[in-house]
Amino acid sequence: MSPNPHIAWVSRYVFWSLSVLCVLVSTGLRATVEPTWRELNPENTIFLEMPEGLVVIELNPAFAPETVKQFKQLTEDRFYDGLSFYRVIDGFVAQGGDGSDLGELSNAPLVDAEFEIDWNEEFSYMHVQSPDMFAPETGIIDGFAVARDPSRDKVWLTHCPGIVAMARKDDPDSSRTDFYIVIGQAPRYLDRNMNIFGRVVYGMDVVQRIKRGPILGNGIIQDEMESSRISKMQLLSEIPEEDRLKVYVVDTTNEGFKKLLKDRLNRKQKFFHNQPPKVLDVCQVPVAGRITK
Amino acid sequence: MSPNPHIAWVSRYVFWSLSVLCVLVSTGLRATVEPTWRELNPENTIFLEMPEGLVVIELNPAFAPETVKQFKQLTEDRFYDGLSFYRVIDGFVAQGGDGSDLGELSNAPLVDAEFEIDWNEEFSYMHVQSPDMFAPETGIIDGFAVARDPSRDKVWLTHCPGIVAMARKDDPDSSRTDFYIVIGQAPRYLDRNMNIFGRVVYGMDVVQRIKRGPILGNGIIQDEMESSRISKMQLLSEIPEEDRLKVYVVDTTNEGFKKLLKDRLNRKQKFFHNQPPKVLDVCQVPVAGRITK
Repeated sequence: MSPNPHIAWVSRYVFWSLSVLCVLVSTGLRATVEPTWRELNPENTIFLEMPEGLVVIELNPAFAPETVKQFKQLTEDRFYDGLSFYRVIDGFVAQGGDGSDLGELSNAPLVDAEFEIDWNEEFSYMHVQSPDMFAPETGIIDGFAVARDPSRDKVWLTHCPGIVAMARKDDPDSSRTDFYIVIGQAPRYLDRNMNIFGRVVYGMDVVQRIKRGPILGNGIIQDEMESSRISKMQLLSEIPEEDRLKVYVVDTTNEGFKKLLKDRLNRKQKFFHNQPPKVLDVCQVPVAGRITK
Repeated sequence: MSPNPHIAWVSRYVFWSLSVLCVLVSTGLRATVEPTWRELNPENTIFLEMPEGLVVIELNPAFAPETVKQFKQLTEDRFYDGLSFYRVIDGFVAQGGDGSDLGELSNAPLVDAEFEIDWNEEFSYMHVQSPDMFAPETGIIDGFAVARDPSRDKVWLTHCPGIVAMARKDDPDSSRTDFYIVIGQAPRYLDRNMNIFGRVVYGMDVVQRIKRGPILGNGIIQDEMESSRISKMQLLSEIPEEDRLKVYVVDTTNEGFKKLLKDRLNRKQKFFHNQPPKVLDVCQVPVAGRITK
């Protein structure tokens, strides 16, 4: 009655709920119990509508202020409406936009590299793993997986599944309009080389339905009619307040989430015949999102 | 003209071809150039047909002989035809079968644990990374990602995206009929705890279209009519020879593949503004498959 995926799921979601419950219990009559879900700021929330369904992206201006500014401006200008995902490589990335990344069609300005930022003690940082294979340390800041190098006082968003980043050419300062969503095993060798500016918080199953391009053709879909299209891209704040859905993500700053991480690190369920190594892959820690009326 | 996904793709596929080419050139007139693609044995190749498309699975009797034997028998008995993926958690696993994993419906025998096997010097082993975060060492044996513990002389298949394994209950010897395919970031904490017996070599984009279950409901799809179905599951060897497609996977045993790994470890393209860490995630090394008439 406790098959693996069940247990695994439990450890991903239900245990999390249980741990929140434990916090509620352990904090007893205290009135300062942290919220379980955090509502997203409509100014930093993108609704990407496709025939396949709705995808919600949370923008991260703290890590990529100029990229977010440009992406919001392009969105408000209706730049992305009707464009397609033209380079889609299964297990890797789905890249969309006007295809200017393949040529010089666009008039949009270039955006400088925003590959990492200075460490700040004010971050609501939740430590996950040190050392990590790709960085001295990993953690989560406000729902976003990050990697950190304490020796240089730097921190950066890391290429987990669902991350959204700008494509560019060889020049590090050549991000423009076209973006990609990671749809496979985290390609972390790209870290500190791309302007990551958001993450999918809802609708990754929709993203996974995006039509793939040919493996032996650079993933490029030659016939545009065959590609998956962006029906509409808009900021949640552009939608009249009475029509807006609310978007929530798991609050990664509280004791409940800390407990979840601890439980994942020390799996004590009798399901585990062999004790898993006491390490965590920051890209395999779920930070769920949900939408409501 | 060399946007990241392009370069990344190049490093995944074209560089691999180039490296094979280099081997061809460097070996000059030698007649012993290794083949680029390896044809799968029809006896160990599963065609899983769904309304969404075709999925091809390579079975691995070397690592899970009893599990493969049972899965082949069930397949030949037409056990899976018409069954569905009833527990599907986005970013984690798609689990299919008759649902016996949820109860006691099935009469199929139980299969003992096949979690790891003894190291054998005869393996066509290609070293990938040591240390890996989850194991002392990782590598690839005949296209399958493996982890290895030289101190215990053991090796095991590791939970990368596309891996196929049997569900079970708490008892390690309780694998039966229901199986899961990993559809998200490698849940490697499950390693050495499950009977992994195959991997998807073609059609992961189809697998990614499998209908998801509710996050807050253990991924279980309550209305069976809503679930994605297995139209037909058959061994390639069951199909008359004249009607068979041929399935090929990248040969991971030759110098060309070794060169690919080396190039991924030491990325020298000018695209990389910051040199990536010199480590490889064994689950992020692509081992492509293709089918032909």
